Amino acid sequence: MSIIRHATPQDWPALWAVIEPVIRAGEAYALDPAMTEGEARATWLGPDRETFVAEYGSEILGTYYLRANQPGGGAHVANCGYATAEAARGKGVARAMCEHSLMHAKARGFTAMQFNFVIASNDAAVHLWKTMGFDVVGTLPGAFRHPKLGFVDALVMYRAL
Amino acid sequence: MSIIRHATPQDWPALWAVIEPVIRAGEAYALDPAMTEGEARATWLGPDRETFVAEYGSEILGTYYLRANQPGGGAHVANCGYATAEAARGKGVARAMCEHSLMHAKARGFTAMQFNFVIASNDAAVHLWKTMGFDVVGTLPGAFRHPKLGFVDALVMYRAL
Repeated sequence: MSIIRHATPQDWPALWAVIEPVIRAGEAYALDPAMTEGEARATWLGPDRETFVAEYGSEILGTYYLRANQPGGGAHVANCGYATAEAARGKGVARAMCEHSLMHAKARGFTAMQFNFVIASNDAAVHLWKTMGFDVVGTLPGAFRHPKLGFVDALVMYRAL
Repeated sequence: MSIIRHATPQDWPALWAVIEPVIRAGEAYALDPAMTEGEARATWLGPDRETFVAEYGSEILGTYYLRANQPGGGAHVANCGYATAEAARGKGVARAMCEHSLMHAKARGFTAMQFNFVIASNDAAVHLWKTMGFDVVGTLPGAFRHPKLGFVDALVMYRAL
């Protein structure tokens, strides 16, 4: 049995276990791979966003946040970041979180969702977001320095809600 | 005689006089039009960026900041925000600041510059950035709620350095 629910402060250790390998690898997000746990916590659980966990049985296998992508005149567009536990990849956790986030963003009154920086070499993510209705609306040439592949493009992806 | 130099804390009142009308109008940036002076100062003079002023005689007519657009694997791409005093529009202040920022960004080791959210209805800005070598690499449909025009597109613009 699985559930996606709001994260609580008590979830942090389990959350960090999901996020830390993603950050340290430096292949999926433009985040400093050397960032501290405190910095990561301040970001992922920041006051500017809602943070969720995907819980399977008693185990947290994924987490995502939802926030306004821009303040002011851009605040009707949502932005999310997702992370799935390494051991749980390919099992639909990210898809379940994305579906949840689209519904939740719409319920919150957002009218679109934007991903600002999808690493083009992250085939699984690019494919998944496309199947979830996102279009590539921008390509940032060589905007990401991949630790193994060197400079790769980053994609801006967008969909209405 | 004009000069573009680093901003100092003492410049803030003159800087704020340039920025405040831009923020309050809410037409050129996705910033909260009701943001306080303290919030604006914390943003515009933030520790994550270098801030400059364009001084003509003893008068500050423009200001811009330069920062990394993303942390981690995206930190080789610069980002800038510019503001020109209302009374000094159309006199080449923004162009001078953009030229300065391109040179300065290159000197700092950045290899490209990206504008994340150029309001498509801001014809003067879109035209100027194109003449400065920026390409539109992305279009965010209806991503900006303009106070007079309603929903308008926002553009992602990019150029190598």
